[in-house]
Amino acid sequence: MEKLAWINLLYDFYGQLLTQRQQKFVELYYAHDLSLGEIAEQFGVSRQAVHDVLKRAEQILTHYEEKLGLVTRFIDQRRRLGEVLALLDENSSTLNGETLSRVREILRDVMG
Amino acid sequence: MEKLAWINLLYDFYGQLLTQRQQKFVELYYAHDLSLGEIAEQFGVSRQAVHDVLKRAEQILTHYEEKLGLVTRFIDQRRRLGEVLALLDENSSTLNGETLSRVREILRDVMG
Repeated sequence: MEKLAWINLLYDFYGQLLTQRQQKFVELYYAHDLSLGEIAEQFGVSRQAVHDVLKRAEQILTHYEEKLGLVTRFIDQRRRLGEVLALLDENSSTLNGETLSRVREILRDVMG
Repeated sequence: MEKLAWINLLYDFYGQLLTQRQQKFVELYYAHDLSLGEIAEQFGVSRQAVHDVLKRAEQILTHYEEKLGLVTRFIDQRRRLGEVLALLDENSSTLNGETLSRVREILRDVMG
């Protein structure tokens, strides 16, 4: 998995354990794709300060994942649910159409 | 959900954030069903001390769940996967038997 997607997943799971400022910077940098310079300007701080806050936030998120492993568990669940979906797709001709679309809807929902 | 099952789920998700001693006491009391007195005797401390450690551990686990809500999210996913299983069961006669047992196996695995 590429770093951007990984950090966004870590943030989705553990972001509430960061300070307000760390949360804001992570959202702007990783979810909204602003540059260090743009965030620095918006908050009236140096690029280095933004860099340090992001670095610290990543360390905290990574620390919790190393302890708890909940994102890794989630990725594994998602992979297996994808396998279920594929199996159902292969057998779609023998399933009642309405049931199949409900099954798919639920699985997609669980998979986020 | 009853308290025992709830604490065990919280511990499954966040237990690694407790100290070694807190982990040990929670396991003995909630998973292995030892009494406060039995744990106290085993560790050479007072019943009150065991009670205090458990109380503090529950507060920490509850704090993380209030922040992150990952156990609540998991319970909801499990409920929805249960719905998928029920739907598949209702339609089992129109599904290839091998596929159905594989689908069930995966879903049960995901549901833990």
